[in-house]
Amino acid sequence: MKRILVVSGPNLNMLGRREPDVYGTQTLGDIEAAVVARADDLGVSVSFFQSNHEGALIDRIQAAVDDEDGIIINPGALTHYSYALRDAVASVGLPVVEVHLSNIANREEFRATSVIAPVCLGQISGFGADSYIRGLEALCDVLMGERQ
Amino acid sequence: MKRILVVSGPNLNMLGRREPDVYGTQTLGDIEAAVVARADDLGVSVSFFQSNHEGALIDRIQAAVDDEDGIIINPGALTHYSYALRDAVASVGLPVVEVHLSNIANREEFRATSVIAPVCLGQISGFGADSYIRGLEALCDVLMGERQ
Amino acid sequence: MKRILVVSGPNLNMLGRREPDVYGTQTLGDIEAAVVARADDLGVSVSFFQSNHEGALIDRIQAAVDDEDGIIINPGALTHYSYALRDAVASVGLPVVEVHLSNIANREEFRATSVIAPVCLGQISGFGADSYIRGLEALCDVLMGERQ
Amino acid sequence: MKRILVVSGPNLNMLGRREPDVYGTQTLGDIEAAVVARADDLGVSVSFFQSNHEGALIDRIQAAVDDEDGIIINPGALTHYSYALRDAVASVGLPVVEVHLSNIANREEFRATSVIAPVCLGQISGFGADSYIRGLEALCDVLMGERQ
Amino acid sequence: MKRILVVSGPNLNMLGRREPDVYGTQTLGDIEAAVVARADDLGVSVSFFQSNHEGALIDRIQAAVDDEDGIIINPGALTHYSYALRDAVASVGLPVVEVHLSNIANREEFRATSVIAPVCLGQISGFGADSYIRGLEALCDVLMGERQ
Amino acid sequence: MKRILVVSGPNLNMLGRREPDVYGTQTLGDIEAAVVARADDLGVSVSFFQSNHEGALIDRIQAAVDDEDGIIINPGALTHYSYALRDAVASVGLPVVEVHLSNIANREEFRATSVIAPVCLGQISGFGADSYIRGLEALCDVLMGERQ
Amino acid sequence: MKRILVVSGPNLNMLGRREPDVYGTQTLGDIEAAVVARADDLGVSVSFFQSNHEGALIDRIQAAVDDEDGIIINPGALTHYSYALRDAVASVGLPVVEVHLSNIANREEFRATSVIAPVCLGQISGFGADSYIRGLEALCDVLMGERQ
Amino acid sequence: MKRILVVSGPNLNMLGRREPDVYGTQTLGDIEAAVVARADDLGVSVSFFQSNHEGALIDRIQAAVDDEDGIIINPGALTHYSYALRDAVASVGLPVVEVHLSNIANREEFRATSVIAPVCLGQISGFGADSYIRGLEALCDVLMGERQ
Amino acid sequence: MKRILVVSGPNLNMLGRREPDVYGTQTLGDIEAAVVARADDLGVSVSFFQSNHEGALIDRIQAAVDDEDGIIINPGALTHYSYALRDAVASVGLPVVEVHLSNIANREEFRATSVIAPVCLGQISGFGADSYIRGLEALCDVLMGERQ
Amino acid sequence: MKRILVVSGPNLNMLGRREPDVYGTQTLGDIEAAVVARADDLGVSVSFFQSNHEGALIDRIQAAVDDEDGIIINPGALTHYSYALRDAVASVGLPVVEVHLSNIANREEFRATSVIAPVCLGQISGFGADSYIRGLEALCDVLMGERQ
Amino acid sequence: MKRILVVSGPNLNMLGRREPDVYGTQTLGDIEAAVVARADDLGVSVSFFQSNHEGALIDRIQAAVDDEDGIIINPGALTHYSYALRDAVASVGLPVVEVHLSNIANREEFRATSVIAPVCLGQISGFGADSYIRGLEALCDVLMGERQ
Amino acid sequence: MKRILVVSGPNLNMLGRREPDVYGTQTLGDIEAAVVARADDLGVSVSFFQSNHEGALIDRIQAAVDDEDGIIINPGALTHYSYALRDAVASVGLPVVEVHLSNIANREEFRATSVIAPVCLGQISGFGADSYIRGLEALCDVLMGERQ
Repeated sequence: MKRILVVSGPNLNMLGRREPDVYGTQTLGDIEAAVVARADDLGVSVSFFQSNHEGALIDRIQAAVDDEDGIIINPGALTHYSYALRDAVASVGLPVVEVHLSNIANREEFRATSVIAPVCLGQISGFGADSYIRGLEALCDVLMGERQ
Repeated sequence: MKRILVVSGPNLNMLGRREPDVYGTQTLGDIEAAVVARADDLGVSVSFFQSNHEGALIDRIQAAVDDEDGIIINPGALTHYSYALRDAVASVGLPVVEVHLSNIANREEFRATSVIAPVCLGQISGFGADSYIRGLEALCDVLMGERQ
Repeated sequence: MKRILVVSGPNLNMLGRREPDVYGTQTLGDIEAAVVARADDLGVSVSFFQSNHEGALIDRIQAAVDDEDGIIINPGALTHYSYALRDAVASVGLPVVEVHLSNIANREEFRATSVIAPVCLGQISGFGADSYIRGLEALCDVLMGERQ
Repeated sequence: MKRILVVSGPNLNMLGRREPDVYGTQTLGDIEAAVVARADDLGVSVSFFQSNHEGALIDRIQAAVDDEDGIIINPGALTHYSYALRDAVASVGLPVVEVHLSNIANREEFRATSVIAPVCLGQISGFGADSYIRGLEALCDVLMGERQ
Repeated sequence: MKRILVVSGPNLNMLGRREPDVYGTQTLGDIEAAVVARADDLGVSVSFFQSNHEGALIDRIQAAVDDEDGIIINPGALTHYSYALRDAVASVGLPVVEVHLSNIANREEFRATSVIAPVCLGQISGFGADSYIRGLEALCDVLMGERQ
Repeated sequence: MKRILVVSGPNLNMLGRREPDVYGTQTLGDIEAAVVARADDLGVSVSFFQSNHEGALIDRIQAAVDDEDGIIINPGALTHYSYALRDAVASVGLPVVEVHLSNIANREEFRATSVIAPVCLGQISGFGADSYIRGLEALCDVLMGERQ
Repeated sequence: MKRILVVSGPNLNMLGRREPDVYGTQTLGDIEAAVVARADDLGVSVSFFQSNHEGALIDRIQAAVDDEDGIIINPGALTHYSYALRDAVASVGLPVVEVHLSNIANREEFRATSVIAPVCLGQISGFGADSYIRGLEALCDVLMGERQ
Repeated sequence: MKRILVVSGPNLNMLGRREPDVYGTQTLGDIEAAVVARADDLGVSVSFFQSNHEGALIDRIQAAVDDEDGIIINPGALTHYSYALRDAVASVGLPVVEVHLSNIANREEFRATSVIAPVCLGQISGFGADSYIRGLEALCDVLMGERQ
Repeated sequence: MKRILVVSGPNLNMLGRREPDVYGTQTLGDIEAAVVARADDLGVSVSFFQSNHEGALIDRIQAAVDDEDGIIINPGALTHYSYALRDAVASVGLPVVEVHLSNIANREEFRATSVIAPVCLGQISGFGADSYIRGLEALCDVLMGERQ
Repeated sequence: MKRILVVSGPNLNMLGRREPDVYGTQTLGDIEAAVVARADDLGVSVSFFQSNHEGALIDRIQAAVDDEDGIIINPGALTHYSYALRDAVASVGLPVVEVHLSNIANREEFRATSVIAPVCLGQISGFGADSYIRGLEALCDVLMGERQ
Repeated sequence: MKRILVVSGPNLNMLGRREPDVYGTQTLGDIEAAVVARADDLGVSVSFFQSNHEGALIDRIQAAVDDEDGIIINPGALTHYSYALRDAVASVGLPVVEVHLSNIANREEFRATSVIAPVCLGQISGFGADSYIRGLEALCDVLMGERQ
Repeated sequence: MKRILVVSGPNLNMLGRREPDVYGTQTLGDIEAAVVARADDLGVSVSFFQSNHEGALIDRIQAAVDDEDGIIINPGALTHYSYALRDAVASVGLPVVEVHLSNIANREEFRATSVIAPVCLGQISGFGADSYIRGLEALCDVLMGERQ
């Protein structure tokens, strides 16, 4: 059974409490529950990790080299400047899908740039919790060998 | 039954013939067949339109106001400069999902910018034909009222 | 009797249906009727052309060399990038007035730049349908020899 | 009877004496006379103010809050950098039309940017004295309630 | 009694030991003692938190949602790039005042930009320890209802 | 007794009448009265000067060399471009505190830059009239020798 | 016999009528006649296509995959922004030579940049109709196997 | 006898009092006395004007059209942004020499740009009071017909 | 005996496992062993610290004030944005040498800029593990008083 | 008989020895022999000059004023920064054609800019040795009076 | 007797032959004769050096350390990019005056920047041969001790 | 025995005479003597070349193809703009190490960019003469086969 790591970056633990007009009312727990349900359908296992610490996120991503087959990452605001996170993603040699809850292209200008995206397989943004679900499906398709 | 328009921009008719290392070996017809299959699963109908003409794409998108409930668009290279296409997308008042076959963030620098994205619901890129499939699912979720 | 061509670019056919808070509720037909009425007062004839196709707009502008004495143009979003349209305007050797319904200086940043303006006689923006009327008057004054 | 203030900025008192190839041979007095004539036609009263002093222009615009119903302004070179003048225009809460004698889009690059335009109703440039006349008409249309 | 959190970012624990010509000879302890004294005068309680870890700062700011009524923050060098810290500040929904010991406008160019400031209530810089004291007073005024 | 000059730049005389959602409902007179009250507490005398004229502001600041011991300045929109005002501030050799009513970091992009700030002692923004009060306190602390 | 397609972009049909000080007095027909004459010398056949429509140019270039062995293209003003045309050129897998009548390096600044050039074999500009002739010779040399 | 106007901009009245390490210890009066002495040698008359008001400087320069044969101007900090002063200089149709006491190329970056210089005859900077003397000589040579 | 701290930033613990074409096959342990061997030759002691956490790196560098005489640092991707790390380096008052395994000048553009370098003694890049060895020698020379 | 100077800049003497994947295997001698052969056909004489010294290139170009009728120049890397070479080209008053072996538009970004091109007649790049041949033909056409 | 070196850079040997509308009809010999005449008046000796070679100019400037007391330099086009020449000027420790025949502020944009100016005493431009004469006088004043 | 060429660019012959606070008091001869001593230890031979002429430096580097096995280069100010020198370094196909005496990252902004570095093996800066010694060691390690 394929194992997938779902990583969420700074402030995503505040979901549901934080700016609902931008991020909706679902908590991160709600999203993770939806991901688990869809993972069950797809026959893959998922692990979750959230941290406000760039270093902890890097530590966890590095550990995936031994423990997981693919990664879904929502880097939060680290998306826009953390070249260290980018290097971690690039170094693990696993397929990585970047997801965002909101459409980062129509908010503040700094959010339109992702320093992580160039080293990912692909990017999904703007669909709220569904961004995670769609990312899970896309990653599974790749892992299942339907697509190289 | 919800109706969805799938729009493909310049040069996408060359898929399969064109730079397979970047775009894969599937033709646009192959992709459309896969979209139809998934649409059947989801219980929605799909129409397809491809053109190398910016004006024809705008004409077709405008017509969707009366004929469709949502749009999936791969604007091709118009992504990077066609403010006219952007205005067409903004004017129809339908949910629009932007998709790309390749990861536009790790190619030439000009491809990293989308002038269409700010007026779309969301964006999916990097999964080949699966970008269309994931876009279809995401759009259906929105149309089905599961998410606003 | 002087003949004047009134050219409207992409998406202007959607006026009245599209984002009324930005563009008002008048249709392009309403505006053209107002222009005709004012043209009658001024003793000039007017022709109208709208297209979502950059190439069709260029074709029509080129034809004005033989058929008209001056041009009023609202290039829509082509204002911001169509150097081909600019060259068409520059090549016809007729006085051309650029008009915009909205104040393009207080919207998205990309709208503040016109690549067409440098080859026009002048520019009028922000007065809704009145921008066309004022452009007609200004063009007539020039054609009537009151001003070089 | 509606009262309109016509404000002219630095160096416009030199009109007719100054670079006639750019600005024509009319003096500011000539232009004001033409504006008065057109105002009589339109049934509005006009007041004129010209100064080379940014501060005096701001003082006069502020006074319009009590004395006038709308403003036509040719800010001269202050167009390109006077955020103080911009704030004055924004603060009075009256409709303001920005006018320029020459086409500011085809001269030195710094003239293509107006820091005043974003807080005006609209902008007219390139028609010499007629820019003032067209501005007067456009402003009257707004004041007369034909357009909001 | 209103509770206020005072957050100090990376390297501020080195105050008094570090570049005294830029930051003075007071230690962070000295500053905190002065803040406590002034807080006593104002009838508010204060808590302090300093860390060199961006993640720890975010964790602590998030906790303030339940524990404090307002925040004074000196983000240190994170001021200039930590969008994650910015999001934390934006998410807590409390009034936040940004303070700096030195005048960040007359040092290296990168220090002139704060990515935190746009989501704060206001900013005070250049007064050494007094920046904290003034920030405390300003925050109290807001919390006491004298202004908002 | 220490004497302090409080300088307010263009359009600040319009406070209370102008854009209350941005600047509040207090008039400049209200603010000055609050400053006087606080100055009495602190045992310093204050003089006030407001002008819409850059030159008049410079003249007054220069006069402070002989008449005052410190300056509080809200340069209004001159903040963003008046290098002449900057040179005046730099030339007087007195401690100068820059204050702003609103948080200039979260408005139009041009307001985020102050050409005055690099030659001031410090900067306070975002607290409405309290910005002046906090500036007065900060300046008094410096003048009273509590801080160099 | 090698077949070569000669493509001319927007406004080149106006040659001879349009700005003769920039483009000379030859018509596009004159140029094409000269190209035919030289092609006869070189023993290759040539086809011509001119359009003001970006989409039509792309359609025709795509068709060359089956019909021609190489392409000479003068993209006109599309040179400076049409990434769609660039993708068409890149996709056909034929040697393509970009030509310009005028020296695009000493005109308006925007003309100095070609988005097409990076995907062409080479570029010739500044020699009027001779640019086409030289391009034909260069392309023939490549097709004749004298150079890879 | 040729008449020459010597114009000094904002803060130059503070010379000798202001930052002597940058501007030296001479007062503006000292410099003007030196200019008079040299003017006597050269057989020309000189008038002086200093103001901190951009508008007053423009008024005086405009008056030179009738009263003087040439102008020496040290625009002070207006050098770097006053397009209104630039237009005044351009409009008078007299030879104008720009002078600066300090070497504006090796101070703050903003001082390296002069918006006035492009419309002057020439520029002299870095020689303290001697910049004025050298400017006087250069201007006299031009006025005396030794050089066009 | 002089004590030297060798600090390695994010992802350097992955050396040997990560992108061997860029970073070679040596592990960080291999490099540290080589550094120890060379340190023995030079008669200095070395301590090592690696972390993926910016804050932990800052904590350790601060501790060097009391424990070490000099620092060799490979900041990894923090090189390009961590002003907090820069401030830590600047604050310790020890000689610091920045080293990089690869030639950061010929990789992605963002890697060409180091925000740490301006506060270091010098920089060595491009020699793999030898960059550390050369940095050790250079630092020893400075510490041994051979060079100021 | 018309005389033509062929100038080659820095490092072109290394052709054939240097990076054959970029520049091919022909030596500069091979290219010059091909140019001589074609010159014989065309009935013109050619002289050659290569140097790694900017100054020597300028000296030789200046000498062409008396000795040659036109110039073909491959400035090598001086193309991108030598304004001195540009001024030499501009000063001789002869028709000059700029040639490059490789397509400078698809290599490093700095190679896309030529400071020489604006003062040349035209530019040919991307055809290896054929760039020289095509340049010779184009220059001859101009010298032979077939084209102005 | 003070000795002064007058250095002229690339292409200045072409003066009188080259673009007389920009540089006038005087040759460099004419200018040098005028400088000698003025030097005789001032009681100083002058040496001249012109070269098209950056290296030769640097060699000569370095030699001035032993042979001259001050330098007048017209760097020609090297003004805009030769940091090597700048370093030579900075290294000699003599007062250096930069002169230009034309007003470099109103020509091509690249000419407005001097990389030499920041390390000179001052700069004189726009007065043709008189720029050298005024530079000589200014330099003599400095050498004669009238000004530091 | 491996042969190494040590190249020093413009103004480095002035070392010891020139700005000792930046470059120290050692002459280039002193540095070369130290390099010879270290080369003897390492068992390699060294040749030295210094010139103020870009062209002479290129000539010498080209000659190294036949005569040396590796190069150490301090390009002086040519570091920042000489693409011709860069091409010479790239063309020789030898390992090249770039060295600088001072830390080029903390001086004028233009010195932070090296156009040579991308084609070198690595870069060492900030250690005075020791930069050459460390470069020699690093180059020897590569030549000795200890590292590829």
